[in-house]
Amino acid sequence: MSTSRGDMKILFSAPESDWADYRDLLPSALAHAGITAEVVREAAPDTVDYIVYAPNDDLRDFTPFTRTRAVLSLWAGVERIVGNATLTQPLTRMVDAGLERGMVEYVTGHVLRHHLGMDAHVVNPERDWTPVPPPLAADRPVTVLGLGALGRACATTLAGLGFPVTGWSRTPKRIEGLRCLSGEDGLTAALTGAEIIVALLPLTPETEGILDAARFALPAPRAALINPGRGALIDDAALLEALDAGRIGHATLDVFRTEPLPREHPYWAHPRVTVTPHVASATRPATAARVIAENIRRAEAGEPLLFEVDRVRGY
Amino acid sequence: MSTSRGDMKILFSAPESDWADYRDLLPSALAHAGITAEVVREAAPDTVDYIVYAPNDDLRDFTPFTRTRAVLSLWAGVERIVGNATLTQPLTRMVDAGLERGMVEYVTGHVLRHHLGMDAHVVNPERDWTPVPPPLAADRPVTVLGLGALGRACATTLAGLGFPVTGWSRTPKRIEGLRCLSGEDGLTAALTGAEIIVALLPLTPETEGILDAARFALPAPRAALINPGRGALIDDAALLEALDAGRIGHATLDVFRTEPLPREHPYWAHPRVTVTPHVASATRPATAARVIAENIRRAEAGEPLLFEVDRVRGY
Repeated sequence: MSTSRGDMKILFSAPESDWADYRDLLPSALAHAGITAEVVREAAPDTVDYIVYAPNDDLRDFTPFTRTRAVLSLWAGVERIVGNATLTQPLTRMVDAGLERGMVEYVTGHVLRHHLGMDAHVVNPERDWTPVPPPLAADRPVTVLGLGALGRACATTLAGLGFPVTGWSRTPKRIEGLRCLSGEDGLTAALTGAEIIVALLPLTPETEGILDAARFALPAPRAALINPGRGALIDDAALLEALDAGRIGHATLDVFRTEPLPREHPYWAHPRVTVTPHVASATRPATAARVIAENIRRAEAGEPLLFEVDRVRGY
Repeated sequence: MSTSRGDMKILFSAPESDWADYRDLLPSALAHAGITAEVVREAAPDTVDYIVYAPNDDLRDFTPFTRTRAVLSLWAGVERIVGNATLTQPLTRMVDAGLERGMVEYVTGHVLRHHLGMDAHVVNPERDWTPVPPPLAADRPVTVLGLGALGRACATTLAGLGFPVTGWSRTPKRIEGLRCLSGEDGLTAALTGAEIIVALLPLTPETEGILDAARFALPAPRAALINPGRGALIDDAALLEALDAGRIGHATLDVFRTEPLPREHPYWAHPRVTVTPHVASATRPATAARVIAENIRRAEAGEPLLFEVDRVRGY
């Protein structure tokens, strides 16, 4: 379809590095969706129809954007912006096929890394040759916390590889091939005996610090924790204590309360921690640009937006 | 079904460590298949009906086993025994569902490890934070050499994760979701531009040293090689030279011409080599015992054996 509004203006409000990725891809995706619009880096607020937004951008006061019909986040996680009272327009978060594929690859790779015990072979200065194969995936219980688009895709991929997978979500869900649990009791059951735990929950007041000392006592001894979700899901002091005590055997962490992770943070030096530099959940510009364009097309056509944020739920 | 031969004798001719695994599992699998037999560690050769055999066993002269109706290998690779002129009975190799699952897990894990560049995070003493995500699997061409049961299972799993997978086999094959190539020209095409190569060929006179200097010149620069197949598929001197020159970026090797890999072997010290101690292709006793029992049932019933070795082809 083609819009009749020849003067549509889209403000790209995100850091310069994002602009380098999107300056060509976004106009091209818009043209492909039949949208004629100007994508700009600066504009008088009352002339802006849509804002493409990264939550680490400087823009914080949305009051002057009187004409703006929607704010379209480039990020999946919107906790930095969802409570902003000046943002009254519809807000969408990014659910990007590229991000989902990248997350599935990261999670599957690191689950298999822990499952296979790879690190003992990657770093083996003693030249130790112990030909003991790991158990099969079928004997390695994995728990995925969070069954949104990303958690669900990871959980079903792991189940397809043969892992017995338990998924946990706030509200009850049914997904073929998974044991789905929910609620407070469900969380205890989901963690109990798990050998590998993947945290993919959204960050909300209820999930902040959800992985705390009490919950680190539940998994199998020396379980592995993989957190590509949000840094603040974890009580960092409790995790370090659980690692030191061997209750948690290893943590692979991709996200942190402060990023880049400060050089003096104990995670860097801990022998049972692997730090990955926020690479799991990267939005891929080529696919994300298509999502933005599709949502602008929908807004113009009066159709419901994809991935609109529920301000009460927080994501 | 139940056999009428009450005096069936099965010689378990394999090292003591295998006996520990199978001494209970094998009689139980036989009973489950309706076979009444005695499984023994020693017997007068002319009283033995079947030999369960590991190719690293001392038994080399099969001449006195005049009554033996089949030799059932516990290993998938039978190159050590296939040319033994004294072995005139039908010979079967092991195609074990557990072995196949374990191989898929090993190959998928190590392909993802190289794809994601995990090692740079596992060993990161500089605390380097470079948040550049890897490309998606869809942009990472993988080539699997060998499309037998194991190669095929690995290739289709990798294709399911989104990798563009090329499979190569001696004879032409068609497998949905893969680009299948064969023959000498096909091998050159399969290797050209590959970023990750998985070697799962049987070892035969034609495949010995098949990965040589000329072939290491074909993949993409700094490609990763994963060899869970047979050590002698690789020309070791050529691989070390290709690694030193950076033509091959990394080799993860599970099998070697001599095992355990001698402590002084240059692979141990090479910064671009990961040695895994022959853990990828472990037969899993619980599932393998069922394959042995099924083949004895078939032999007794006059049905064709599963996985019988073709002496001319060599596997």
